[in-house]
Amino acid sequence: MKILFIGDIVGSPGREMIYRYLPRLKKKYAPDVVIVNGENAASGRGITKSIFDDLLRAGVDIVTMGNHTWDQKEIFDFIDETDYLIRPANFSDEAPGKGMTTISKNGITLSIINLHGRTFLPPHGDPFEKATELVKEAQQVSPLIFVDFHAEATSEKIAMGWHLDGLASVVVGTHTHVQTADDRILPGGTAYLSDAGMTGPYDEILGMRKEDVLYRFKTNMPVRFEVPKEGRTQLNGLFTEIDDTTGKAIHVERVSINDDRPFQN
Amino acid sequence: MKILFIGDIVGSPGREMIYRYLPRLKKKYAPDVVIVNGENAASGRGITKSIFDDLLRAGVDIVTMGNHTWDQKEIFDFIDETDYLIRPANFSDEAPGKGMTTISKNGITLSIINLHGRTFLPPHGDPFEKATELVKEAQQVSPLIFVDFHAEATSEKIAMGWHLDGLASVVVGTHTHVQTADDRILPGGTAYLSDAGMTGPYDEILGMRKEDVLYRFKTNMPVRFEVPKEGRTQLNGLFTEIDDTTGKAIHVERVSINDDRPFQN
Amino acid sequence: MKILFIGDIVGSPGREMIYRYLPRLKKKYAPDVVIVNGENAASGRGITKSIFDDLLRAGVDIVTMGNHTWDQKEIFDFIDETDYLIRPANFSDEAPGKGMTTISKNGITLSIINLHGRTFLPPHGDPFEKATELVKEAQQVSPLIFVDFHAEATSEKIAMGWHLDGLASVVVGTHTHVQTADDRILPGGTAYLSDAGMTGPYDEILGMRKEDVLYRFKTNMPVRFEVPKEGRTQLNGLFTEIDDTTGKAIHVERVSINDDRPFQN
Amino acid sequence: MKILFIGDIVGSPGREMIYRYLPRLKKKYAPDVVIVNGENAASGRGITKSIFDDLLRAGVDIVTMGNHTWDQKEIFDFIDETDYLIRPANFSDEAPGKGMTTISKNGITLSIINLHGRTFLPPHGDPFEKATELVKEAQQVSPLIFVDFHAEATSEKIAMGWHLDGLASVVVGTHTHVQTADDRILPGGTAYLSDAGMTGPYDEILGMRKEDVLYRFKTNMPVRFEVPKEGRTQLNGLFTEIDDTTGKAIHVERVSINDDRPFQN
Ligand SMILES: [Fe+2]
Ligand SMILES: [Fe+2]
Ligand SMILES: [Fe+2]
Ligand SMILES: [Fe+2]
Ligand SMILES: [Fe+2]
Ligand SMILES: [Fe+2]
Ligand SMILES: [Fe+2]
Ligand SMILES: [Fe+2]
Repeated sequence: MKILFIGDIVGSPGREMIYRYLPRLKKKYAPDVVIVNGENAASGRGITKSIFDDLLRAGVDIVTMGNHTWDQKEIFDFIDETDYLIRPANFSDEAPGKGMTTISKNGITLSIINLHGRTFLPPHGDPFEKATELVKEAQQVSPLIFVDFHAEATSEKIAMGWHLDGLASVVVGTHTHVQTADDRILPGGTAYLSDAGMTGPYDEILGMRKEDVLYRFKTNMPVRFEVPKEGRTQLNGLFTEIDDTTGKAIHVERVSINDDRPFQN
Repeated sequence: MKILFIGDIVGSPGREMIYRYLPRLKKKYAPDVVIVNGENAASGRGITKSIFDDLLRAGVDIVTMGNHTWDQKEIFDFIDETDYLIRPANFSDEAPGKGMTTISKNGITLSIINLHGRTFLPPHGDPFEKATELVKEAQQVSPLIFVDFHAEATSEKIAMGWHLDGLASVVVGTHTHVQTADDRILPGGTAYLSDAGMTGPYDEILGMRKEDVLYRFKTNMPVRFEVPKEGRTQLNGLFTEIDDTTGKAIHVERVSINDDRPFQN
Repeated sequence: MKILFIGDIVGSPGREMIYRYLPRLKKKYAPDVVIVNGENAASGRGITKSIFDDLLRAGVDIVTMGNHTWDQKEIFDFIDETDYLIRPANFSDEAPGKGMTTISKNGITLSIINLHGRTFLPPHGDPFEKATELVKEAQQVSPLIFVDFHAEATSEKIAMGWHLDGLASVVVGTHTHVQTADDRILPGGTAYLSDAGMTGPYDEILGMRKEDVLYRFKTNMPVRFEVPKEGRTQLNGLFTEIDDTTGKAIHVERVSINDDRPFQN
Repeated sequence: MKILFIGDIVGSPGREMIYRYLPRLKKKYAPDVVIVNGENAASGRGITKSIFDDLLRAGVDIVTMGNHTWDQKEIFDFIDETDYLIRPANFSDEAPGKGMTTISKNGITLSIINLHGRTFLPPHGDPFEKATELVKEAQQVSPLIFVDFHAEATSEKIAMGWHLDGLASVVVGTHTHVQTADDRILPGGTAYLSDAGMTGPYDEILGMRKEDVLYRFKTNMPVRFEVPKEGRTQLNGLFTEIDDTTGKAIHVERVSINDDRPFQN
């Protein structure tokens, strides 16, 4: 099974990149499944029903989330109505939605799990314990398991990689909005990348207007961050191929599109 | 001027990688200046005089530091005696050592500045203010300015990149021990990379034994992290070329050596 | 000089307590100066011009602030027009307003300084350095100096107490909304209290509806905190007397009014 | 049942205060049970077997702990051998020791529970969930339940007070080393105090040499904190009386002994 994952879509510039490049990426990689992190899809803060629908229409199969899951209140209206959007599984038992879903293509089933880190972040449930529990459950269905670990610290992400090495097919990090260059297949057969990077503005800071973020850093004064609608954009993600029988990763390849790395067929 | 920077050297496995590959990297890139981050060179914690001397003998010109600067107490004995080791410039005025130094090769002078982030880190002096101040001072000498910004958060690092775009020749991050894939030359002419990555163990967590780090994450119980002496190793860094007249970056290229990306001449 | 200080006024229940008890407290203590922390006066978030005016009309002389200073945008319109409201002095140089003011009563001048902690809080300017600088400036005018140190950690607050012992007349903490019982006069003559406590709801959590705060702690789910308008209320503060000649504290006494500790003449 | 609780004993100055005043406090209050927080009893860092034995010999019944539980490695040798020392119950399942114990005096049984906060602290298990679970278990034995909640943030502590109001007999906080003045009996019958305060040096910072702590705050430079052996000392705690039948608190009273508040019979 071939899986294309695209990192945190930020605002309309991020969505535009999906609309423009997903068709070409599908032609290039022929992915069986397309997963995107959509926690910033609505102006950088959460996701709405219409944006979610647009992403599905554009060819996305599954949307994962993160710390911005609840930013748009309307998510409470549709999160329990869909199997195609998941939020971190180690959120509270009282949180609506779910943290794992499955998708079948050509008779092969893939489980997708979303987890949330706790280093420099709120004290959610233990992501390592939850990972063990869900992977065990997923393995009942199929050995093909994809994990989006939304976390800040490289130590926690790499720890999750080793924790799931040989158990999950793919462990990819999100949240820092910067793609890391440590893509590899771990000895147990798990494709790993600390962070997939973001999809949206290319000349700003994590997708937010750089002047505003800089002002905050320089002054600690309040400023509302916005996603600029103009300007150059980027798309970042990960392409992996998984052995359908063993669930082991066969191939891992970073995807990065921007003016310095133009798309190539 | 050609500059080779090598990210956080962790323990003896990291030093071994320097000894083994620096000669080959010099042959390949012909750098005029070699800078390394040495904050973890001594068993993952700080640096000693003899390790510092060994690095210089191995062909390193300048050593930068970070949050682990003071881990080895003997640094207090030699930090004020050398021009070849700097610590973050926005440390307290009472801290020994200095945060900027210069080196001249073939009549060209390069200023090297070390700064420390504050997001998820202690409240050191303002790194943005200090950057402005030191860059202004450095520009009196030469337009070639190299900055190692030792910081955790991608937002703060990218903010520094934009803050110094057109003012510094190179802004490279360190501290997360994972190389990022966002190397680029910013519009103003500054070569930028969010993190250079680390040099040392390849199959551990930030260079520390993975079983120990995982145990800490899973239990929050105390455990002393150690750098394993056995096992595969990696080297990560950044190669840049700077225009001697303008101080603008002409070329930027990530350097990464490990079993998945073997060294190539 | 006698000084009455009243801790963080939270919303309308807090303001009501001021209106109801300040006249009686004035009768009881005969303070020359009344200072209140007003950072939560407007529905728990910042202060408005009309609330500020109401507090002055109610007999307040000086209002201090904290991390909530900028929550109400209209503060930007009046903060530079008044000498009776100060915000933390170690905020950015670009922040409007000021961090020190003076007031004279019966020929005696008191300087009031507001500072902000950095432990578990954003990296504002160094409060210890700023304290030294402002105290030196204030001493040119008068030895009577009052400091409201808005900070979270007891260690940082006590450190400030010792830092200013013999230099300031009073160092009182705010921000935790819980009055501490460590009121004392330090050996150098500085009246000290780690936290003055809050003024507002008595049966909630820091003045915010307890069900909401508990829900957040139990689930890490988003919830907007509100100040309940109904219910029992409390007032907390500190009364001190300062020697007019030396600026040393002569007397320190906690003030606490609630159903368990009814006001006594 | 009468319960005397004494807050974080810091080093030998703290232990000396126990030896000197516990006999007098027993005479004054006639407590049925004496509980102390001992997480800093050994030079400010953890507890040893001989110190633990000394405390029991001095008349202590139960010792509670906190974030410093594991600082002295020898605790691993004796923590599973005693029913008189507990560590936070929401520590990892893999942690040795236990988080709840019982003691019977004159036919009345009291359960003692130790919990750890997570705000500004590592992501231990959920203390609210664990509290509910343990209180339910304890109620099978007796309605008399004492909780030491070792936590930093006042919001989390007060939240625990309301969470357990009517379920626990006493909820007292520790960790900040500063006694708060908010002792009260909540409407449901739970005696509450946000922090009991510490027992040890009176003129230092949280029991550690003030010059060192101040140096750290002023410079962010490394410095090893030590408990000074000389100097004035203090003892802080809480005395409560519980109805033996209902488990409701009848009386709550702060205990504080220092040069400014000398012991009174
Ligand atoms: Fe994101
Ligand atoms: Fe995120
Ligand atoms: Fe490092
Ligand atoms: Fe570091
Ligand atoms: Fe407040
Ligand atoms: Fe505050
Ligand atoms: Fe303690
Ligand atoms: Fe503690």
